[in-house]
Amino acid sequence: MAAFQMGSGYAVPMTLFRNNRDRAGKAILKELLPGLKFNDGNLLVLLEGGKDQSLYNTDVDYVFRQESYFQYLFGVKEPGCYGILTIDVKTGAQKSVLFVPRFPDEYGTWMGELLGLQEFKAMYEVDEVFYVDEMSVYLEGASPKLILTLSGTNSDSGLTLQPPDFAGKEKYVTDCNLLYPILSECRVIKSPEEIEVLRYVAKVSSDAHIKVMRFMRPGRMEFEGESLFLHHAYSVGGCRHASYTCICGSGTNSSILHYGHAGAPNSKPVQDGDLCLFDMGANYCGYAADITCTFPANGKFTDDQKFIYNAVLDARNAVTESARDGVSWVDMHKLAGRVLLQRLKEGGMLKGDVEEMLEAGVSGVFQPHGLGHLIGLDVHDVGGYLPKEPKRPSEPWLSKLRFARILKAGMYVTIEPGCYFINWLMDRALADPNIAKFINAEMFNRFRNFGGVRIEDDVLITKTGVENFAIVPRTVEDIEATMTCKYDSPV
Amino acid sequence: MAAFQMGSGYAVPMTLFRNNRDRAGKAILKELLPGLKFNDGNLLVLLEGGKDQSLYNTDVDYVFRQESYFQYLFGVKEPGCYGILTIDVKTGAQKSVLFVPRFPDEYGTWMGELLGLQEFKAMYEVDEVFYVDEMSVYLEGASPKLILTLSGTNSDSGLTLQPPDFAGKEKYVTDCNLLYPILSECRVIKSPEEIEVLRYVAKVSSDAHIKVMRFMRPGRMEFEGESLFLHHAYSVGGCRHASYTCICGSGTNSSILHYGHAGAPNSKPVQDGDLCLFDMGANYCGYAADITCTFPANGKFTDDQKFIYNAVLDARNAVTESARDGVSWVDMHKLAGRVLLQRLKEGGMLKGDVEEMLEAGVSGVFQPHGLGHLIGLDVHDVGGYLPKEPKRPSEPWLSKLRFARILKAGMYVTIEPGCYFINWLMDRALADPNIAKFINAEMFNRFRNFGGVRIEDDVLITKTGVENFAIVPRTVEDIEATMTCKYDSPV
Repeated sequence: MAAFQMGSGYAVPMTLFRNNRDRAGKAILKELLPGLKFNDGNLLVLLEGGKDQSLYNTDVDYVFRQESYFQYLFGVKEPGCYGILTIDVKTGAQKSVLFVPRFPDEYGTWMGELLGLQEFKAMYEVDEVFYVDEMSVYLEGASPKLILTLSGTNSDSGLTLQPPDFAGKEKYVTDCNLLYPILSECRVIKSPEEIEVLRYVAKVSSDAHIKVMRFMRPGRMEFEGESLFLHHAYSVGGCRHASYTCICGSGTNSSILHYGHAGAPNSKPVQDGDLCLFDMGANYCGYAADITCTFPANGKFTDDQKFIYNAVLDARNAVTESARDGVSWVDMHKLAGRVLLQRLKEGGMLKGDVEEMLEAGVSGVFQPHGLGHLIGLDVHDVGGYLPKEPKRPSEPWLSKLRFARILKAGMYVTIEPGCYFINWLMDRALADPNIAKFINAEMFNRFRNFGGVRIEDDVLITKTGVENFAIVPRTVEDIEATMTCKYDSPV
Repeated sequence: MAAFQMGSGYAVPMTLFRNNRDRAGKAILKELLPGLKFNDGNLLVLLEGGKDQSLYNTDVDYVFRQESYFQYLFGVKEPGCYGILTIDVKTGAQKSVLFVPRFPDEYGTWMGELLGLQEFKAMYEVDEVFYVDEMSVYLEGASPKLILTLSGTNSDSGLTLQPPDFAGKEKYVTDCNLLYPILSECRVIKSPEEIEVLRYVAKVSSDAHIKVMRFMRPGRMEFEGESLFLHHAYSVGGCRHASYTCICGSGTNSSILHYGHAGAPNSKPVQDGDLCLFDMGANYCGYAADITCTFPANGKFTDDQKFIYNAVLDARNAVTESARDGVSWVDMHKLAGRVLLQRLKEGGMLKGDVEEMLEAGVSGVFQPHGLGHLIGLDVHDVGGYLPKEPKRPSEPWLSKLRFARILKAGMYVTIEPGCYFINWLMDRALADPNIAKFINAEMFNRFRNFGGVRIEDDVLITKTGVENFAIVPRTVEDIEATMTCKYDSPV
């Protein structure tokens, strides 16, 4: 049985992608059949795989990563391919065809012995394989009534995937808009095979987090944590890629939501008394993890750190206990906010009625991001704001939500409440009488250089609750106990 | 003094980039002044920095790397900038101006406190800093007689850098062709400050290679070597980026010149008896290393492995002893080929006259690549085939050379002879009577699964010779001795 595997990492069976194709084909027929102007013949889905991406005009390419929709349907690791899924609209019968680039012999010197078509067929368990330059002949033979290509806008990035060009395109009836929402919706509900890959990459990432936690201490650089995470994920887990740039913030940097970017590349030394907020996730066979751990650099929480940490943990626990199939994600976001505000009030930082605070948007002062997001092949996975789903809420404290749907079994989401002390947001809050009236300013201002806390799990939604794939210490006690067992890399 | 530094890594002074600007400004005047239609007023050099690059239409960006020409002149780590170098054509006086993106306050939540213009000025030691949206006003005030922008084709990748767009461009006389060869030529000769950065990143890479050599053994995966190299380079050396995708070939994979690509991602277990050819280089502050070590997986060379390794080592030693200012690189390539063929003949694999073999192209059967390349901010650095320099040779066994120049003191190049047994090249050689007549086919065929050997150093060309920045064991004895001291990562 063909599989993707790196070392002793999880063997991802190619049937995963065949099943994805089956589901996609059925969903396409279900959605489109009623509106089709033909009731026999072939409907074709034509996808373009990712291409090598060079660094500017230099001779260096980024390490290739496959385009996610193409990965979803074909699981192909090489750049420069196309894939076709043929669907007989009368019988529903499907056929998968992969098109691979044809290289001259000389490429063998640089790339290794060139695989033949039969080798690609065996490796990816598709029905047929041809060269890309044979696609137009294939299309003529298939004489499709309609070709669906992929184009659409990602609701998180705002970027649009352009529909592919291919030889002979003008000879066919094509549509580039119908497919995107259907495939995106397919990707939202994870299959049993996908769930096992996601479980694996979350476990690898969890183990790497624990190692980093045991390794960090005052004097080490933030980027040493990033480096160790990536090394564990790759050398132990076979994960060549991270799902996103590692965020390794210590001290006040822990309040910067996307710290670690080029202008602030995890380059601060970790100091005694710092909180460390490390948000890192590996990627295996295209599938993502996205986990955040927050811990004290010196291994012991201060009372202030415990206060904020436990407020976030309580918010996380409340959501974890309430989320399940049928529950509104917006309600979960509100629940997390409510618990956080309640705890901050109990600790003396806030005053007044928690429901009034919620409505006034006070939780957005502390957590200026949504509770979480869908995750899968993309770390911010597709399916957030599809045409048939609830629109993005307009209230400022809800508008950052990356989706606003009713949870369904098989969804895979992050639950990531946080509490951060961000100067400009603190200033704005104190300057707004409708917010400031809930704040104990003296105590609030004392936290100006505190940084922030985020606790981020990756959970599978089930009929009865959630299953958490992030297996890391979460209570103050467990974190402190974990950190007593130091890890000293000999590097 | 402002500097770029990661942890305890080398502090790269921002004067390095100021000096680059000075040299570039002088070179521009020297080249262009005679042809200018004006003899007072301002000449402007306007460069666009690199932009964030997203993965398809997802919400994930590649970790940012600066465009190399922009890095050369400004050393700026953030994306989305522009830079201007103003040159008074009468006095030669220069002024450097950096333009940085203006972000709304909200970005501070995600990116951290937004730096002010004065902070950028101090960080990069430029003369002035403005926001990008102020560039058109700045240009009006500067009223340049001519604006030079950058566009040109990389002789290794064949890719073309597009000239930048900017507001108000149509109001000025601009030229996008003159600058590229001048700046490229500036980049060819390394300054004393650049040499120290290159020395540093080569040392970090060398140490990482040695650690990997001591770590690898039968049963470990090729990618574990890649992972350990990257981890050492980052956590110890502060190098967040590799200069190119790591090539970690073992067994027959060691004969694949660009092994490690997406279709062959260093995914084989290393086996007893394998040769390992590991070609890996870190990147620090934009500057590259590019080093290859070849060693036996089990720590002991076989006689066949010693034979081929020493043939390549002799070729490398001959070049290292002969290369210097004033010597032709093409002659060095021929010298390496001559020594390699001589040794293979002595070992019984070849027969006949070595000079005749050379002319017939026999060395290209064993080493189907050039002897080396310029290296600097790009691993295959610019300056290879500039208009005023020797053209690419047309003979097949010379045509792969990435440059054909006379060496000059201050050039920094790789010396990387190799000897590989590549099936399709072997078949082609045996089928060509003009080549086959030099080959002892029986012995030659015995090496079909041998793999390959490459020895790659990074050397500075001086008036009297070369200085090798790759500090790794090179003799059979030194490699075997190094490998007796095993490194066991606890990962």
